[in-house]
Amino acid sequence: MADLPKFVQINEEGPREGFQIEKGPISTRRKIELIDALSETGLNHIQTASFVNPKRVPGWADADEVVAGFTPRPGVKYTGLWLNDKGLERAIATGKLFIRGSISLTASEKFLLRNQRRTFADNVEAQRGMIRLFKQNGIAIERGAIMAAFGCNFEGDISTDRVLTMVKQIMDLADEHDLTIKTLSLADTMAWATPQDIYRVVGAVREKYPDLALALHLHDTRGMAIANAFAGLQMGVGIYDAAVGGLGGCPFAAHGGAAGNICTEDLVFMLHEMGIETGIDLEKLLDVARLAENIVGHPLPGHVKTGGSLQTLRQTTKTAA
Amino acid sequence: MADLPKFVQINEEGPREGFQIEKGPISTRRKIELIDALSETGLNHIQTASFVNPKRVPGWADADEVVAGFTPRPGVKYTGLWLNDKGLERAIATGKLFIRGSISLTASEKFLLRNQRRTFADNVEAQRGMIRLFKQNGIAIERGAIMAAFGCNFEGDISTDRVLTMVKQIMDLADEHDLTIKTLSLADTMAWATPQDIYRVVGAVREKYPDLALALHLHDTRGMAIANAFAGLQMGVGIYDAAVGGLGGCPFAAHGGAAGNICTEDLVFMLHEMGIETGIDLEKLLDVARLAENIVGHPLPGHVKTGGSLQTLRQTTKTAA
Repeated sequence: MADLPKFVQINEEGPREGFQIEKGPISTRRKIELIDALSETGLNHIQTASFVNPKRVPGWADADEVVAGFTPRPGVKYTGLWLNDKGLERAIATGKLFIRGSISLTASEKFLLRNQRRTFADNVEAQRGMIRLFKQNGIAIERGAIMAAFGCNFEGDISTDRVLTMVKQIMDLADEHDLTIKTLSLADTMAWATPQDIYRVVGAVREKYPDLALALHLHDTRGMAIANAFAGLQMGVGIYDAAVGGLGGCPFAAHGGAAGNICTEDLVFMLHEMGIETGIDLEKLLDVARLAENIVGHPLPGHVKTGGSLQTLRQTTKTAA
Repeated sequence: MADLPKFVQINEEGPREGFQIEKGPISTRRKIELIDALSETGLNHIQTASFVNPKRVPGWADADEVVAGFTPRPGVKYTGLWLNDKGLERAIATGKLFIRGSISLTASEKFLLRNQRRTFADNVEAQRGMIRLFKQNGIAIERGAIMAAFGCNFEGDISTDRVLTMVKQIMDLADEHDLTIKTLSLADTMAWATPQDIYRVVGAVREKYPDLALALHLHDTRGMAIANAFAGLQMGVGIYDAAVGGLGGCPFAAHGGAAGNICTEDLVFMLHEMGIETGIDLEKLLDVARLAENIVGHPLPGHVKTGGSLQTLRQTTKTAA
């Protein structure tokens, strides 16, 4: 256990996570509307689009147009997602995004084969190619990421040793290219983690790599995301990916199951209530969560947008007393 | 912090919580169907009905018929809820329920006035009346309960001192009547708690009353219930109220907001994954959660019924490997 962090960095991934999974077509204009609204909440890191094969992810066929259309706010980093060099080249070509150089591995080979059609060995080789491309474009590479670090629907449990092997591979790739990895993101891509797994995996990585800043990417498919974030905080993890409204997930099987990322405003609510700063205006964020619901046209799983924050109630009850 | 409990007792409150809030009429037959299905899951404590004023809670106008109709399973305790002596007398008259003698206070007077039309002083006096009634009927009184122990939508934050005052009042009432309170239930009735509040309140109560077994009643209105239960486990709390499917709540404002109790199967999922026993068959419970959804006719907020348990996936992946 560590002291809880005083400040938590939240990387908003709602637009990218959300629009890749929605069945109904969502107009480019409304995607831009969501990004522009998020820019006004105090969030300083917003993942705006996914530069993936439009045949596989039709919801992001308009990634270039979305990025061209939003109004950047000074001080906010706008990022994109890619899975290969073609996607990275598109993201760079926008001229508008903060390109986050990463070495990204996946702890389950079965998932890697399904998601990216690569073996473990293919993926290490692919990372070498990405590193070359980052370097050619003068992009700093200071981040490692491990997908499926807590379990896999196709491979089952993922051992702590497997995760440590992946971290070592990232570090070896970094050494090979004279890079220093400063941040490592651990993703519970398929929502296998409980708080004890967060202790186990984060603890093991931190013991071996005490200087690495750790980040968590938590999915809420089994309702554990907020509890897992709390366990992360207890382990001193100060960076979280999150999705406004719980975008990317939905409580109905008809929409593909509650597969979404941890809900940004529910996480911010917990953090603020525990005295941890985020730089985010919760009330504005709750308005954006309701906007996100309006844009996708169906209820999103976040709770506080319906239950209401406590600051408002505290003011009301104080006035009434 | 304490060692996590090896076994957790779950008191299922889904039928009572759920049917009191649903807008559409639900037939007596289907209420009985849910209770009978819950009896087959390994749950050993099921709250079946609410004996309250049918004018205020029309969903429970058929409480007597529901209790008359279910098939009791040996080893399962079936309970009811009441708020006054009239309700208690109806519950006793069924001849079929385990009558749990309790001294029940509320930490917010404003909520007490709205919910039960009583002042603090009225409520202490009312408890004396209930104790007399329990004693006349030979019912053991070993449980205390404090509603709104973590905050109140009408009064704001509730201080630790206020909760300790309430516990002392319960203990004084017990002394006055030669009773020994063995279990104390703390209810986050309006979902104000974060995990740190659980540490704060549970810690303060445990320090003053180390021999009391503690129970938590957690609402998920702001998405904190599972994280709060995890904090409770860390503090050694081994008894939780819960509602199958998250009955009593709904993710849509149209259904009154996500006001439900913590979802039983999501809690059981976390407990089993952490190696804590409950005596409950999770797969059977997931089937009952889907049945509950069918009975109320709209999606319920529980996650694992959609996301699926991991035991099934572990078997599939083992077979595939």
